Amino acid sequence: MEIERIQLQKHGDSRGMLVSLEQNRNVPFEIRRVYYIFANTPDVHRGQHAHRHLTQLAVPVRGSVTLLLDDGTGPATVVLDDPTQGLLLGSMVWRELYDFSDDCVLMVLADQFYDPADYITDYAQFLREVHGVRYVEGLAL
Amino acid sequence: MEIERIQLQKHGDSRGMLVSLEQNRNVPFEIRRVYYIFANTPDVHRGQHAHRHLTQLAVPVRGSVTLLLDDGTGPATVVLDDPTQGLLLGSMVWRELYDFSDDCVLMVLADQFYDPADYITDYAQFLREVHGVRYVEGLAL
Repeated sequence: MEIERIQLQKHGDSRGMLVSLEQNRNVPFEIRRVYYIFANTPDVHRGQHAHRHLTQLAVPVRGSVTLLLDDGTGPATVVLDDPTQGLLLGSMVWRELYDFSDDCVLMVLADQFYDPADYITDYAQFLREVHGVRYVEGLAL
Repeated sequence: MEIERIQLQKHGDSRGMLVSLEQNRNVPFEIRRVYYIFANTPDVHRGQHAHRHLTQLAVPVRGSVTLLLDDGTGPATVVLDDPTQGLLLGSMVWRELYDFSDDCVLMVLADQFYDPADYITDYAQFLREVHGVRYVEGLAL
Protein backbone atom coordinates (compact mmCIF):
# COMPACT_ATOMS: atom_id res chain seq x y z
CA MET A 1 0.00 0.00 0.00
CA GLU A 2 1.03 3.60 -0.48
CA ILE A 3 2.55 5.43 2.50
CA GLU A 4 1.68 9.12 2.81
CA ARG A 5 4.13 11.16 4.85
CA ILE A 6 3.82 14.86 5.59
CA GLN A 7 7.06 16.79 6.04
CA LEU A 8 6.59 19.28 8.86
CA GLN A 9 8.43 22.57 8.92
CA LYS A 10 10.53 23.03 12.03
CA HIS A 11 11.21 26.41 13.52
CA GLY A 12 14.22 26.92 15.72
CA ASP A 13 17.93 26.83 16.05
CA SER A 14 20.55 25.17 18.23
CA ARG A 15 18.67 26.32 21.36
CA GLY A 16 15.53 24.33 20.57
CA MET A 17 12.88 23.33 18.06
CA LEU A 18 9.19 23.95 17.47
CA VAL A 19 6.82 22.26 15.03
CA SER A 20 3.36 23.71 14.46
CA LEU A 21 0.33 21.82 13.12
CA GLU A 22 -2.75 23.77 12.05
CA GLN A 23 -6.07 22.29 11.00
CA ASN A 24 -6.96 22.55 7.32
CA ARG A 25 -3.51 24.01 6.68
CA ASN A 26 -0.59 21.61 7.05
CA VAL A 27 -2.99 19.13 8.69
CA PRO A 28 -5.50 18.11 5.99
CA PHE A 29 -8.52 17.96 8.29
CA GLU A 30 -10.19 19.57 11.31
CA ILE A 31 -8.48 18.58 14.56
CA ARG A 32 -11.15 17.40 17.00
CA ARG A 33 -9.06 15.03 19.09
CA VAL A 34 -5.41 14.66 20.04
CA TYR A 35 -4.06 11.61 21.82
CA TYR A 36 -0.63 10.39 22.74
CA ILE A 37 0.66 6.98 23.66
CA PHE A 38 3.69 6.50 25.86
CA ALA A 39 5.34 4.24 28.46
CA ASN A 40 4.99 1.26 26.16
CA THR A 41 6.89 -1.91 26.96
CA PRO A 42 9.21 -2.84 24.04
CA ASP A 43 7.51 -6.15 23.28
CA VAL A 44 3.93 -4.86 23.18
CA HIS A 45 1.84 -4.76 20.02
CA ARG A 46 -0.78 -2.02 19.91
CA GLY A 47 -3.35 -1.02 17.37
CA GLN A 48 -4.53 -4.18 15.62
CA HIS A 49 -7.60 -2.45 14.24
CA ALA A 50 -8.85 -0.30 11.39
CA HIS A 51 -11.24 2.66 11.36
CA ARG A 52 -14.24 2.86 9.08
CA HIS A 53 -14.19 6.67 8.78
CA LEU A 54 -11.44 8.21 10.91
CA THR A 55 -8.51 10.14 9.41
CA GLN A 56 -5.43 10.67 11.55
CA LEU A 57 -1.95 12.16 11.49
CA ALA A 58 0.64 10.34 13.61
CA VAL A 59 3.85 12.07 14.70
CA PRO A 60 6.65 10.46 16.75
CA VAL A 61 7.38 13.49 18.92
CA ARG A 62 9.96 11.41 20.82
CA GLY A 63 11.68 8.10 20.13
CA SER A 64 10.64 5.57 17.53
CA VAL A 65 7.98 3.00 16.70
CA THR A 66 7.28 0.67 13.78
CA LEU A 67 3.88 0.44 12.08
CA LEU A 68 2.54 -2.35 9.95
CA LEU A 69 -0.14 -0.95 7.65
CA ASP A 70 -2.50 -2.78 5.32
CA ASP A 71 -5.25 -1.30 3.17
CA GLY A 72 -6.20 -4.72 1.79
CA THR A 73 -3.78 -4.59 -1.14
CA GLY A 74 -0.90 -5.95 0.94
CA PRO A 75 1.04 -4.84 4.02
CA ALA A 76 3.71 -2.16 4.31
CA THR A 77 6.06 -1.44 7.20
CA VAL A 78 7.00 2.08 8.31
CA VAL A 79 9.48 3.18 10.95
CA LEU A 80 8.54 6.49 12.56
CA ASP A 81 11.55 8.12 14.21
CA ASP A 82 11.59 11.74 13.03
CA PRO A 83 9.59 14.37 14.98
CA THR A 84 9.38 16.49 11.84
CA GLN A 85 7.62 13.82 9.78
CA GLY A 86 3.97 12.94 10.15
CA LEU A 87 2.25 9.83 8.80
CA LEU A 88 -1.23 10.27 7.35
CA LEU A 89 -3.55 7.40 8.22
CA GLY A 90 -6.77 7.28 6.22
CA SER A 91 -9.85 5.21 6.88
CA MET A 92 -9.92 1.46 6.21
CA VAL A 93 -6.26 0.86 6.98
CA TRP A 94 -5.39 -1.97 9.33
CA ARG A 95 -2.55 -0.92 11.64
CA GLU A 96 -0.32 -2.56 14.19
CA LEU A 97 2.27 -0.69 16.28
CA TYR A 98 5.33 -2.40 17.74
CA ASP A 99 9.05 -1.98 18.50
CA PHE A 100 8.42 1.06 20.67
CA SER A 101 11.64 2.61 21.93
CA ASP A 102 11.71 3.08 25.70
CA ASP A 103 11.24 6.82 25.32
CA CYS A 104 8.66 6.72 22.51
CA VAL A 105 5.82 9.23 22.59
CA LEU A 106 3.53 8.93 19.57
CA MET A 107 1.17 11.87 19.16
CA VAL A 108 -1.90 11.41 16.96
CA LEU A 109 -4.27 14.08 15.65
CA ALA A 110 -7.72 12.87 14.63
CA ASP A 111 -10.64 14.40 12.74
CA GLN A 112 -13.33 12.79 14.92
CA PHE A 113 -14.02 12.13 18.58
CA TYR A 114 -13.42 8.67 19.98
CA ASP A 115 -16.16 6.35 18.71
CA PRO A 116 -16.05 2.61 19.50
CA ALA A 117 -18.44 1.93 16.59
CA ASP A 118 -15.81 3.20 14.14
CA TYR A 119 -13.35 0.42 15.05
CA ILE A 120 -12.90 -2.87 13.20
CA THR A 121 -10.89 -5.11 15.53
CA ASP A 122 -11.18 -8.38 13.62
CA TYR A 123 -8.82 -8.72 10.65
CA ALA A 124 -11.09 -11.09 8.71
CA GLN A 125 -13.95 -8.65 9.12
CA PHE A 126 -11.66 -5.83 7.95
CA LEU A 127 -10.80 -7.77 4.79
CA ARG A 128 -14.48 -8.39 4.10
CA GLU A 129 -15.35 -4.71 4.50
CA VAL A 130 -12.37 -3.33 2.60
CA HIS A 131 -13.10 -5.62 -0.35
CA GLY A 132 -16.74 -4.60 -0.27
CA VAL A 133 -18.06 -8.04 0.59
CA ARG A 134 -21.39 -7.96 2.38
CA TYR A 135 -21.15 -9.79 5.63
CA VAL A 136 -23.93 -11.74 7.27
CA GLU A 137 -23.20 -13.50 10.55
CA GLY A 138 -21.39 -16.72 9.68
CA LEU A 139 -21.56 -16.14 5.93
CA ALA A 140 -19.39 -14.12 3.57
CA LEU A 141 -21.78 -13.42 0.69
CA MET B 1 -1.61 34.24 40.24
CA GLU B 2 -3.89 31.22 40.18
CA ILE B 3 -2.62 28.08 38.41
CA GLU B 4 -5.24 26.03 36.57
CA ARG B 5 -4.30 22.40 36.02
CA ILE B 6 -6.42 19.84 34.22
CA GLN B 7 -6.07 16.24 35.35
CA LEU B 8 -6.17 14.01 32.28
CA GLN B 9 -7.54 10.50 32.43
CA LYS B 10 -5.04 7.88 31.32
CA HIS B 11 -6.08 4.66 29.67
CA GLY B 12 -3.80 1.67 29.80
CA ASP B 13 -1.98 -0.81 31.91
CA SER B 14 1.57 -2.04 32.43
CA ARG B 15 1.94 -2.52 28.64
CA GLY B 16 1.47 1.18 27.83
CA MET B 17 -0.52 4.37 28.32
CA LEU B 18 -2.83 6.55 26.25
CA VAL B 19 -4.20 10.00 27.05
CA SER B 20 -6.97 11.47 24.91
CA LEU B 21 -7.81 15.16 24.53
CA GLU B 22 -11.06 16.18 22.84
CA GLN B 23 -12.11 19.69 21.95
CA ASN B 24 -14.94 21.18 23.99
CA ARG B 25 -14.87 18.07 26.20
CA ASN B 26 -11.82 17.69 28.44
CA VAL B 27 -10.16 20.51 26.47
CA PRO B 28 -12.21 23.65 27.19
CA PHE B 29 -11.94 25.10 23.67
CA GLU B 30 -11.81 24.22 19.97
CA ILE B 31 -8.43 22.82 18.95
CA ARG B 32 -7.23 24.69 15.87
CA ARG B 33 -3.50 24.33 16.35
CA VAL B 34 -1.13 21.88 18.02
CA TYR B 35 2.55 22.58 18.45
CA TYR B 36 5.37 20.88 20.28
CA ILE B 37 8.74 22.12 21.41
CA PHE B 38 11.67 19.79 21.83
CA ALA B 39 15.47 19.50 21.63
CA ASN B 40 15.88 22.45 23.95
CA THR B 41 19.26 23.13 25.48
CA PRO B 42 19.04 23.08 29.29
CA ASP B 43 20.06 26.72 29.77
CA VAL B 44 17.66 28.23 27.24
CA HIS B 45 14.75 30.48 28.22
CA ARG B 46 11.77 30.34 25.86
CA GLY B 47 8.45 32.10 25.81
CA GLN B 48 8.96 35.57 27.26
CA HIS B 49 5.69 36.80 25.87
CA ALA B 50 1.96 36.99 26.54
CA HIS B 51 -1.00 36.54 24.21
CA ARG B 52 -3.81 39.05 23.94
CA HIS B 53 -6.50 36.48 23.07
CA LEU B 54 -5.06 32.98 22.79
CA THR B 55 -6.05 30.15 25.15
CA GLN B 56 -3.78 27.12 25.35
CA LEU B 57 -3.36 23.81 27.12
CA ALA B 58 0.25 22.73 27.72
CA VAL B 59 1.11 19.08 28.43
CA PRO B 60 4.62 17.76 29.15
CA VAL B 61 4.27 14.54 27.15
CA ARG B 62 7.91 13.70 27.97
CA GLY B 63 10.38 15.05 30.52
CA SER B 64 10.00 18.24 32.49
CA VAL B 65 10.08 22.01 32.18
CA THR B 66 9.53 24.95 34.54
CA LEU B 67 7.21 27.84 33.73
CA LEU B 68 7.17 31.28 35.25
CA LEU B 69 3.68 32.77 34.86
CA ASP B 70 2.47 36.26 35.60
CA ASP B 71 -0.99 37.70 35.04
CA GLY B 72 0.01 41.08 36.43
CA THR B 73 -0.88 40.22 40.03
CA GLY B 74 2.51 38.65 40.73
CA PRO B 75 4.49 35.71 39.38
CA ALA B 76 4.02 32.01 40.05
CA THR B 77 6.32 29.12 39.19
CA VAL B 78 5.06 25.75 37.96
CA VAL B 79 7.02 22.57 37.24
CA LEU B 80 5.43 20.44 34.51
CA ASP B 81 6.64 16.85 34.73
CA ASP B 82 3.52 14.68 34.55
CA PRO B 83 2.15 13.63 31.12
CA THR B 84 -1.30 13.21 32.65
CA GLN B 85 -1.54 16.82 33.84
CA GLY B 86 -2.25 19.75 31.57
CA LEU B 87 -1.74 23.41 32.37
CA LEU B 88 -4.38 25.83 31.13
CA LEU B 89 -2.92 29.10 29.88
CA GLY B 90 -5.41 31.90 29.38
CA SER B 91 -4.92 35.17 27.58
CA MET B 92 -2.87 37.98 29.11
CA VAL B 93 -0.46 35.76 31.00
CA TRP B 94 3.24 36.44 30.66
CA ARG B 95 5.15 33.17 30.45
CA GLU B 96 8.77 32.09 30.46
CA LEU B 97 9.91 28.48 30.02
CA TYR B 98 13.22 27.19 31.35
CA ASP B 99 14.97 24.23 33.00
CA PHE B 100 14.03 21.91 30.14
CA SER B 101 15.12 18.34 30.77
CA ASP B 102 17.19 16.86 27.94
CA ASP B 103 14.26 14.71 26.84
CA CYS B 104 11.52 17.32 27.29
CA VAL B 105 8.72 17.45 24.74
CA LEU B 106 6.10 20.05 25.59
CA MET B 107 2.90 19.71 23.56
CA VAL B 108 0.57 22.70 23.39
CA LEU B 109 -3.01 22.81 22.10
CA ALA B 110 -4.28 26.23 21.05
CA ASP B 111 -7.68 27.66 20.15
CA GLN B 112 -6.39 29.92 17.37
CA PHE B 113 -3.96 29.76 14.47
CA TYR B 114 -0.55 31.34 14.84
CA ASP B 115 -0.96 35.12 14.72
CA PRO B 116 2.07 37.39 15.31
CA ALA B 117 -0.28 40.30 16.13
CA ASP B 118 -1.54 38.41 19.18
CA TYR B 119 1.88 38.42 20.85
CA ILE B 120 3.11 40.92 23.44
CA THR B 121 6.87 40.46 23.64
CA ASP B 122 7.72 43.47 25.80
CA TYR B 123 7.10 42.99 29.52
CA ALA B 124 6.52 46.71 30.23
CA GLN B 125 3.95 46.79 27.42
CA PHE B 126 2.32 43.67 28.89
CA LEU B 127 2.01 45.36 32.27
CA ARG B 128 0.44 48.43 30.68
CA GLU B 129 -2.11 46.34 28.76
CA VAL B 130 -2.96 43.97 31.61
CA HIS B 131 -3.59 46.89 33.93
CA GLY B 132 -5.73 48.58 31.32
CA VAL B 133 -3.45 51.53 30.80
CA ARG B 134 -3.76 53.07 27.37
CA TYR B 135 -0.41 53.20 25.67
CA VAL B 136 0.72 55.84 23.25
CA GLU B 137 4.21 55.58 21.80
CA GLY B 138 6.60 56.87 24.46
CA LEU B 139 3.84 57.78 26.92
CA ALA B 140 1.98 55.71 29.49
CA LEU B 141 -1.30 57.63 29.84
